[in-house]
Amino acid sequence: MRQNAACLQLDQNGRLRHFLSIAGLSRELLIEIMDTAESFGGVADQVVKKVPLLRGKTVVNLFFENSTRTRTTFELAAKRLSADVLNVNIATSATSKGESLLDTIRNLEAMHVDMFVVRHASSGAAHFIASHVAPHISVINAGDGSHAHPTQAMLDMFTIRQIKGRIEGLIVVIVGDILHSRVARSQISALIKLGVQEVRVIAPRTLIPEGIQSFGVHVFEQIDSALSGADVVIALRLQKERMSGAFLPSEHEYFSCYGLTEQRLKHAKNDVTVMHPGPINREVEIESRVVDGPHSVILQQVSNGIAIRMATMAMTMSTINQTRSQQPK
Amino acid sequence: MRQNAACLQLDQNGRLRHFLSIAGLSRELLIEIMDTAESFGGVADQVVKKVPLLRGKTVVNLFFENSTRTRTTFELAAKRLSADVLNVNIATSATSKGESLLDTIRNLEAMHVDMFVVRHASSGAAHFIASHVAPHISVINAGDGSHAHPTQAMLDMFTIRQIKGRIEGLIVVIVGDILHSRVARSQISALIKLGVQEVRVIAPRTLIPEGIQSFGVHVFEQIDSALSGADVVIALRLQKERMSGAFLPSEHEYFSCYGLTEQRLKHAKNDVTVMHPGPINREVEIESRVVDGPHSVILQQVSNGIAIRMATMAMTMSTINQTRSQQPK
Amino acid sequence: MRQNAACLQLDQNGRLRHFLSIAGLSRELLIEIMDTAESFGGVADQVVKKVPLLRGKTVVNLFFENSTRTRTTFELAAKRLSADVLNVNIATSATSKGESLLDTIRNLEAMHVDMFVVRHASSGAAHFIASHVAPHISVINAGDGSHAHPTQAMLDMFTIRQIKGRIEGLIVVIVGDILHSRVARSQISALIKLGVQEVRVIAPRTLIPEGIQSFGVHVFEQIDSALSGADVVIALRLQKERMSGAFLPSEHEYFSCYGLTEQRLKHAKNDVTVMHPGPINREVEIESRVVDGPHSVILQQVSNGIAIRMATMAMTMSTINQTRSQQPK
Repeated sequence: MRQNAACLQLDQNGRLRHFLSIAGLSRELLIEIMDTAESFGGVADQVVKKVPLLRGKTVVNLFFENSTRTRTTFELAAKRLSADVLNVNIATSATSKGESLLDTIRNLEAMHVDMFVVRHASSGAAHFIASHVAPHISVINAGDGSHAHPTQAMLDMFTIRQIKGRIEGLIVVIVGDILHSRVARSQISALIKLGVQEVRVIAPRTLIPEGIQSFGVHVFEQIDSALSGADVVIALRLQKERMSGAFLPSEHEYFSCYGLTEQRLKHAKNDVTVMHPGPINREVEIESRVVDGPHSVILQQVSNGIAIRMATMAMTMSTINQTRSQQPK
Repeated sequence: MRQNAACLQLDQNGRLRHFLSIAGLSRELLIEIMDTAESFGGVADQVVKKVPLLRGKTVVNLFFENSTRTRTTFELAAKRLSADVLNVNIATSATSKGESLLDTIRNLEAMHVDMFVVRHASSGAAHFIASHVAPHISVINAGDGSHAHPTQAMLDMFTIRQIKGRIEGLIVVIVGDILHSRVARSQISALIKLGVQEVRVIAPRTLIPEGIQSFGVHVFEQIDSALSGADVVIALRLQKERMSGAFLPSEHEYFSCYGLTEQRLKHAKNDVTVMHPGPINREVEIESRVVDGPHSVILQQVSNGIAIRMATMAMTMSTINQTRSQQPK
Repeated sequence: MRQNAACLQLDQNGRLRHFLSIAGLSRELLIEIMDTAESFGGVADQVVKKVPLLRGKTVVNLFFENSTRTRTTFELAAKRLSADVLNVNIATSATSKGESLLDTIRNLEAMHVDMFVVRHASSGAAHFIASHVAPHISVINAGDGSHAHPTQAMLDMFTIRQIKGRIEGLIVVIVGDILHSRVARSQISALIKLGVQEVRVIAPRTLIPEGIQSFGVHVFEQIDSALSGADVVIALRLQKERMSGAFLPSEHEYFSCYGLTEQRLKHAKNDVTVMHPGPINREVEIESRVVDGPHSVILQQVSNGIAIRMATMAMTMSTINQTRSQQPK
């Protein structure tokens, strides 16, 4: 899979061609993504918040799952790169007329679009699309099932680097539903690749995937010991739809065992950084005072989300443009 | 409230910073809005219908209530100012995942957007948002509950000024559901501020708010006497959903008592102007012949709606740009 | 009707003013549309896929019927001409508040839009709108009931011309539900006008309109004889909603009698071209191997759809601009 993902995501010179998952990408490439995002950080402060890198290109937001928040950040990122954006919500579209995923892709390709930003409930959907698109099209994974959400992971890495100056040597704790979280999967992969000292996870047993220790992750049973000496704590959103099943006790009980409170944060380092991918359930997985408190960088994560999305869009499109310009006409 | 609204809407130099309600704004500022709209009137006649005033800015249409018509006019106005427009329909969005209004605002802010155009079913929502946004963001109220709809009121004032050459000294009659109408509330406020001779209202008693006389409005019981000598008649849309309750008799009966007919218009001045905020129920609150007749300026109101929206967007953004450029870096 | 359609679609100098149906247009004009589309073919290959022909113009996608696919192609075409695009989905809009079609049109007109792309379930809707719009607005029919879908027909003609080098003298077979197909109606009209040798139709009797022979079309009862010697075969989509009524036997039975298979294609010429307007029901009206096989130009049709839509938008807008510039100010 790692080999496979590398082949699919990189061109023959090792440049980013699609952005599908952290797996398969080198440490150097992750750093290049962060460096590129940093160079876009200033765009949001300009009077005219635009750079012409994707002018005349067509970016298709291909959402098979509703997500206004994620769609919005990609739409903004594309517009700030001067691209034209086409929002295609497949839940209400041609596939309901029985057209297959591949036929939908082939049709959009034939319209000479340049990039697919894909959100899908099935793990592997973005990889599947990337392995079938024409050579001039790049694919960005905006979340596939419980598999990966690589732009979210990279904006988190970028935010940690901004705050701490480095990722190497840090102790990072992830609290919450690891089992169903594509965010956690991508974060763990990126953190390890970027050389953290330790990744810790803490959650009800039913929400910890089996065999996660094999990735070098430490599983904790008590939140206070998990937080002990932590540099960064990432609280995950509690998907309330899990509550009805056998996975979880009540919301109240969850908060009392795993909720991130000011009190508990005292176990972490003094300058601990608190993160959350959003949207937040205040007083469920995280205390409201922590969200709005001095350790929280949750809104900085959102800002960085635009920069990271601009970076991966610009990098993949640049790879394709270089490849095309080197081809004999 | 008036003081409060003034503080919120104006910067320290008295320039328009948010546009939330007519209350709190001076007569001079209302005139400045109309003068600015007049300067944009020509844009729609140009071959390239655009001015670059908001180039590179991101305008978010934040609609918590569906309204294609109002959303469309704001989207067009923003695009003619060269802004990027993001339509966020909150009914189908993150708030349904339990995120609070303020968290939604904070998130969009973190994406470095520049303006919120807010439509909400609750009175005061736009004020609430304006009192919480970052200093570089302006808020335009596109209708909040039964409270205010100030761009509609200003496009009506602008239309009256275009037709009559003035607003001072006119007799203006508003026919219909005053009680539930944010349009009427904003109109009355603007008309009085701009020096009309008399504002008259006429409707079934159940649809007249108590104590409205204290605003200097005259309540009539007979439509013919209300229309007598009128310069301008504004028919309000009959919200059919009110019909089911105790508020109203049948549609037919409403028309026979309060419907604006050619016959009745004869009581008004010869050059009476007929207005309606739309959408129209023909033969319910207004006779079809009147809608399409020589006194009607209903479509001119729609055209002016674009100009007024461009004006308030450009003015608030200009205030913010001036403030920023005066700050030490 | 033909006379009428001509009057409505052409200006006094015979230039295209609206694009509503093939009926009423001359052979020369159809060729001009294809030639213009050809000139736009290169735009999709440019690095910046845009031409400034409609810069500052507002194109309204006025869809009274959902069709993501068609809406998308028009939106892309308009954006590549540098227009601003406003998507108005009337199913969820003001008309549900009881506003009439004409009032909706008048309102959008008053907002100084420049073009309506109209999709409607009722035959004649686009003609109705075209006969009522202001002189500076052009109307493009994006499908009205079972009446016409002229951009689809023209992209098919354009594709045939690209592949075969000509349309004159060809034998073209249309397989499927002719009765309910606006596509077939427009195709037959265009094919005959452009001088094909023969148009053949084949379908269950219940799906062949009465009197179709009077248009010079040959009705076949056996698919193999219909295909015999054919240059082009167009398979139509089977509207599954017809299956429930008395029109059709089972899906399986339909495929066995009328499905376009590799086996059957052997009756056609060796270099036969296979077309389909999409979306495709694989293994219902057409065998999957044929869709993806060497004779199929189905994706080329999609690409050409953008070019044809750009062409008709640019031509109608150019007619209006010329008319305006010749008028005394």
